[in-house]
Amino acid sequence: MKSSRIKLTLTVIFFALFTSFKISAEDGSRLWLRADTVITPSEVIYRDTGDETLLLAVEELRRYWKGHAVRLVISDARDIRALTSEGFLIEGDSRSGVTITSSTEAGLLYGTHHLLRLQVTGETGGSITVKESPKYALRILNHWDNQDDSVERGYAGSSIWQWQSEQDSTVIALYRNYARANASIGLNGTVLNNVNASPLILSAPILKKVKTIADVLRPYHIKVYLSVNFDSPAALGGLPSSDPLSKDVRQWWKGKVKELYTVIPDFGGFLVKANSEGLPGPQDFGRTHADGANMLAEALAPFGGIVMWRAFVYNPSDEDRAKQAVLEFLPLDGQFSPNVLIQVKNGPVDFQPREPFSPLFGLMKETPLMPELQITQEYLGQSNHLVYLATMWKEFFESDTYVKGEGSSVAEITDGSLVPQKLTGIAGVANTGMDVNWCGHHFAQANWYAFGRLAWNHSLTAEEVADEWIKQTFSNEPDFVAQVSTLMLESRETAVRYMMPLGLHHIFAWEHHYGPEPWTDIPGARTDWMPSYYHRADAEGIGFDRSISGGAVEQYATPLCEKWKDLATCPEKFLLWFHHVPWDYRTKSGKILWDELCYHYDEGVQEVREYQRTWDKMEPYVDAERFRHVQAKLKIQSHDAVWWKDACLLYFQTFSRRIIPYEIERPIYDLDELIENSRPKTVKP
Amino acid sequence: MKSSRIKLTLTVIFFALFTSFKISAEDGSRLWLRADTVITPSEVIYRDTGDETLLLAVEELRRYWKGHAVRLVISDARDIRALTSEGFLIEGDSRSGVTITSSTEAGLLYGTHHLLRLQVTGETGGSITVKESPKYALRILNHWDNQDDSVERGYAGSSIWQWQSEQDSTVIALYRNYARANASIGLNGTVLNNVNASPLILSAPILKKVKTIADVLRPYHIKVYLSVNFDSPAALGGLPSSDPLSKDVRQWWKGKVKELYTVIPDFGGFLVKANSEGLPGPQDFGRTHADGANMLAEALAPFGGIVMWRAFVYNPSDEDRAKQAVLEFLPLDGQFSPNVLIQVKNGPVDFQPREPFSPLFGLMKETPLMPELQITQEYLGQSNHLVYLATMWKEFFESDTYVKGEGSSVAEITDGSLVPQKLTGIAGVANTGMDVNWCGHHFAQANWYAFGRLAWNHSLTAEEVADEWIKQTFSNEPDFVAQVSTLMLESRETAVRYMMPLGLHHIFAWEHHYGPEPWTDIPGARTDWMPSYYHRADAEGIGFDRSISGGAVEQYATPLCEKWKDLATCPEKFLLWFHHVPWDYRTKSGKILWDELCYHYDEGVQEVREYQRTWDKMEPYVDAERFRHVQAKLKIQSHDAVWWKDACLLYFQTFSRRIIPYEIERPIYDLDELIENSRPKTVKP
Repeated sequence: MKSSRIKLTLTVIFFALFTSFKISAEDGSRLWLRADTVITPSEVIYRDTGDETLLLAVEELRRYWKGHAVRLVISDARDIRALTSEGFLIEGDSRSGVTITSSTEAGLLYGTHHLLRLQVTGETGGSITVKESPKYALRILNHWDNQDDSVERGYAGSSIWQWQSEQDSTVIALYRNYARANASIGLNGTVLNNVNASPLILSAPILKKVKTIADVLRPYHIKVYLSVNFDSPAALGGLPSSDPLSKDVRQWWKGKVKELYTVIPDFGGFLVKANSEGLPGPQDFGRTHADGANMLAEALAPFGGIVMWRAFVYNPSDEDRAKQAVLEFLPLDGQFSPNVLIQVKNGPVDFQPREPFSPLFGLMKETPLMPELQITQEYLGQSNHLVYLATMWKEFFESDTYVKGEGSSVAEITDGSLVPQKLTGIAGVANTGMDVNWCGHHFAQANWYAFGRLAWNHSLTAEEVADEWIKQTFSNEPDFVAQVSTLMLESRETAVRYMMPLGLHHIFAWEHHYGPEPWTDIPGARTDWMPSYYHRADAEGIGFDRSISGGAVEQYATPLCEKWKDLATCPEKFLLWFHHVPWDYRTKSGKILWDELCYHYDEGVQEVREYQRTWDKMEPYVDAERFRHVQAKLKIQSHDAVWWKDACLLYFQTFSRRIIPYEIERPIYDLDELIENSRPKTVKP
Repeated sequence: MKSSRIKLTLTVIFFALFTSFKISAEDGSRLWLRADTVITPSEVIYRDTGDETLLLAVEELRRYWKGHAVRLVISDARDIRALTSEGFLIEGDSRSGVTITSSTEAGLLYGTHHLLRLQVTGETGGSITVKESPKYALRILNHWDNQDDSVERGYAGSSIWQWQSEQDSTVIALYRNYARANASIGLNGTVLNNVNASPLILSAPILKKVKTIADVLRPYHIKVYLSVNFDSPAALGGLPSSDPLSKDVRQWWKGKVKELYTVIPDFGGFLVKANSEGLPGPQDFGRTHADGANMLAEALAPFGGIVMWRAFVYNPSDEDRAKQAVLEFLPLDGQFSPNVLIQVKNGPVDFQPREPFSPLFGLMKETPLMPELQITQEYLGQSNHLVYLATMWKEFFESDTYVKGEGSSVAEITDGSLVPQKLTGIAGVANTGMDVNWCGHHFAQANWYAFGRLAWNHSLTAEEVADEWIKQTFSNEPDFVAQVSTLMLESRETAVRYMMPLGLHHIFAWEHHYGPEPWTDIPGARTDWMPSYYHRADAEGIGFDRSISGGAVEQYATPLCEKWKDLATCPEKFLLWFHHVPWDYRTKSGKILWDELCYHYDEGVQEVREYQRTWDKMEPYVDAERFRHVQAKLKIQSHDAVWWKDACLLYFQTFSRRIIPYEIERPIYDLDELIENSRPKTVKP
């Protein structure tokens, strides 16, 4: 895979530079950047300052813009200054000429990509007026890549950084393609390495590689960040401790940061997972998360660097895991330095197919919170299932926290529009790897794309983003766009149905988080890593009662808390998240809970089969290579949906002791066999 | 399995003799013989001659008959003499007394089982008058059991003969239960060993075991037969050759037969597979099948023994395999000794899910032909699929050969009613093994049962036999009987649909004959063992053109030959058996052939899913143990049906280059993966 992608990358560059032939290998390596180069480049008017970012914009326009001349203008006019520094204004007409104006070269590059996108999606026919500024200042990919080139929760091959490779031109070309793709959707930062960070990331040989990457990414206006191990002063620096209040430790970090900025003058900062799932942190020395974060912030501040400190912490305790981030971080609100953001996963547990938003959003009023979304589909079929995540993220962005009264959406809380913030940012855990199509599943590219577009503008609808992506990646054909868009927009709800409907969560297989294992019970392991901790099925019913006094529901503001606490008013999508519900409870459909559960699973299965049908009908619109690849993945998904349905229904049936309604397709698996064979990833007869 | 069945067998005997408690282990070991013993036995009136067969009848009645006294009478009255020696007359009323009359004790035993069956199926309420004679004189099970206790094409455990075991009481009890089951359905012979026979079957130690078995079976009116290896004189006797015209060879056989009859005075005779699939035969010495059969017949004749000589012969040649039995045997018609029967498989190829009848039936006018049916489901899902075979056998029995004009059914040709025969007989390849339920699948017991009942009376309908079996084996509950009967009656057509619809045949996996492998191509292997030999799919169409001049269709009589030869009049169930049909040929439904094929496969899948639903609804009527066992088997069948559908459609699609109609559920397998993984027998996710 690796070498084939690199070879192809070179081929692409060759063709792009010297010819306008169409690429025949439809392997998805070009992502959504598939426009043909033009034969006669249009005129691009700009003042050549030698700025590399500006030249990239010029190059894009010369290669791909099919209209009349484009003028690129740096301006500090009032209307331009009203935008953020990365914002831009596009005005004109493709037949008579278009002007892109920004206060920075980065804005011109973003405006250029925006214009080219409009061209591909067929929106440059008449006059154009577009004014854009990003909603979040920091729009960052988190790569959970290890220095041995493995990728934690990566399902698309080894690390694109190729830590083990020589810095040859093929690797550089790969970085460049990556950077161009990110720039085209507005991303401006990348954390290169796993949050489960090795201290060695800060060692000299690795920093050399980091510098190489930063140098390639810089013209694309992408800053490089690193995840750091909190114990680095001891583990790497040889100090006796890594206590954040120790003078030597603080000095060590200051020295290390200085070294970093010497090599990478625009280095972005640190991402830290501390005192979480066994990693070291300030609590090991009796200090708080604030002590730890502020120490790093102090070292970074002189250079303009930031700290992204993760709130994903929980300990084995009597406290519901869903409550622990609030218990840990809320008391520290107001104690963090100005260049610290707390990075908070969208939900209170862990990137489940559906969670309510984390109650930290809204509760922590004095600290900038940075949502962390997961692009890689750890819990959503990995690179086998077609699940378009924009709908899930939109559900999150639009969740009303009520902390400033009705209309206090998570998006407006975090982007600074409702509560002014010193810093705003959003992170997405990347789904990229060395697979030739970058993401394993062609449709997983849409999630990378959507993360970028929504990080830029979370008020875009999931449908708008899907349409843009489909048109750029596959076809403008209205029938194709309409049918594939419908499929994508429904796909996440379908996955919830066949995996974890009605508020169920974390009943995944212990080892791989791919398939169902609601029965898993590893003796001696943490109870809050066991599915039974979450589903709590018994003879009476199923679900986690978080509606009790002191329960997790009380971390939400009025009137959400009251609404969710009451079984009668709790939305059914969160039913089993907040309540332990009797098997014979009447749901809104009039069915009892057990039957409702059965129908949800079955609908999930039927919907995937419908997706297969839809996709098969799309064959005339798609090249054979990508058509077959997606078709094969849908087969696996269809197979897996039945597996999920059977595993969950047969297992929960041992508690409910009720019949699966006869209208529903009967199970084809035996529970005992499923329990015995836990890891099926491919379809074997 | 083995020891558990033996233990259970003893338990059954214990309970039957000393108590009337209901057996709690519902493991299927009791087959269709599940009546409770009565607490106060009824009077049985008979003349005690000490005949063991008569005493077995008396014992059955004392244990199970719930009505008034039964009289057992041996009679040579005219109306009794009009029956065959095994026939019987039942007259009377269960409240005032019933008389069973026959000219033999065997007839009284059959009459007794008939009466007890009527009692269980609820037909002994009023007055009873039943007069029965078996249609075939020889009703024989063929066990393909080897002396190492393996069973060729056996899917229910090791050989019930337990060749390796000491002759202890548990083994004897097992033989007795087997014999009783056969007697209850009218079977009177059993070939103990595999037609691929070892010469050692005739060695002294093994004959000692054969004698033990014969002694146990004798009171049940079941004769023992052996398959013999044609090369035994050389291989076992040490002669220089086994040439059937050699005086020494003939003498050797005579001596061996004499030895046999000294040990087993009522020994039945030999079954011979010669010059077939690599086995030795008379052709090895330049002699004919008649020479070989007649030599053995000569040795057996003085003792009343018979030879069953198999017509299942074919050589790798340019001649269609379906034609070869006729080419080989027709010229020998009239040359066989009077105590020889030619044993002919129902179809001309090999126990496929659907074949036309073998053209030997009707063509060979001077030789008694003995149909060979396969009870073990070698080609019909083995012991995993629920396929009731009576409908297939009825289709065979009722096939009109037209050789004596319209109405010359295979049954009437072979049973002597249309063409007088010196000998009549029918053989079924057994599906028994040491599995606790004898046959692997509880519903496979129905095929053993149906073979016996139809061998006795082929004019019973498949529905009548199913109803009898269901009532005895499971329940008299009308809803249960109706639904399960419908399922059984449709099941063979369903299997044809998801395996080999429209006349397709022998596209099974090379190694195991379980799953689909239409693609198999073993370099260097016989072409007539390759699926492509049979399906002949190409860009134009699919099917074996046997309608050409000199083709297999010409082995059938007028008007069958003409009807089947013409694509327009050939029944669609035989379409691809006799014709190579273009993909776009319009079938009777109006669909083109490719679509018709797709719909057939899909209907097969949907039907199995419907069987699962039906069975699940039957839960209230069935003990949990058998309910779950059948439910688990149906899951496998449902899974396999999809596998068959996907494998065949995806493979044939590589020729047809047409779309699977969109209404049809899409494939979930990849052809390449299916080709790689050929042996999936259980359901793994």
